[in-house]
Amino acid sequence: MFLRIDHVGIACRNLEESIAFYESAFGLTVVSREVNEEQGVREAMLHVADAEAGASYIQLLEPLGPDTPVGKFIAKRGEGVHHVGYGVADVAKALEEIEAKGIRLIDRRPRHGSMGASIAFLHPKDVGGVLTELVEAPRRTT
Amino acid sequence: MFLRIDHVGIACRNLEESIAFYESAFGLTVVSREVNEEQGVREAMLHVADAEAGASYIQLLEPLGPDTPVGKFIAKRGEGVHHVGYGVADVAKALEEIEAKGIRLIDRRPRHGSMGASIAFLHPKDVGGVLTELVEAPRRTT
Repeated sequence: MFLRIDHVGIACRNLEESIAFYESAFGLTVVSREVNEEQGVREAMLHVADAEAGASYIQLLEPLGPDTPVGKFIAKRGEGVHHVGYGVADVAKALEEIEAKGIRLIDRRPRHGSMGASIAFLHPKDVGGVLTELVEAPRRTT
Repeated sequence: MFLRIDHVGIACRNLEESIAFYESAFGLTVVSREVNEEQGVREAMLHVADAEAGASYIQLLEPLGPDTPVGKFIAKRGEGVHHVGYGVADVAKALEEIEAKGIRLIDRRPRHGSMGASIAFLHPKDVGGVLTELVEAPRRTT
């Protein structure tokens, strides 16, 4: 079901400072910056690697306010890894298969993620404490 | 410097139960089981994807006791993502470059990691709360 580790989502207090750190410390490059009001985050995708099944990224997430999910995460646990995103071929089909196994979903239907992807989150309580995201990359038009 | 996301390390209370979950829920396959006394863990690598720069894995980590680093992590934060491992070409050279940038290292010299890799950890306080591991895969002999 999983095609790749699509990204690791990292909660940070200041997006631009964290971007500057990952660029200078590890030589990563920002390929996308977005504000996702629905998720309450300002975010950036930093490219790590390409592969046949799709690229891998570090996703840096700055909360838009203290009452957002990422804002609450940082207040409780500090900055750090927030979630893991796995590439799947078809997120709607994957959700159906996963729900049929008795795993609770946060999103019963795919929603809009970074860089045009369709995404959905699974409930961390049913995935050993790991907030787990499914990512279906947009179809390439070229 | 980073060639790929080599693995996401996940702390769990019961390795065999977590393996069974990842296998049945997401169709991953165990490719290695090891006990690392030095790190105080019983662990398994589950294969996610292959790529030219090297494969990606989920690493499940069960502490050998409550006084180990992973045991303390679980006592404090519960099960969940413990660290992120990135592939590098030369871990000793990467450590030198990273230390020269003023980032604190946990390991000043590479040590033994999963499946024959040379690994080293960076200090999470200098990497935005993320325990970060460098992984140099063993040379292929075939």
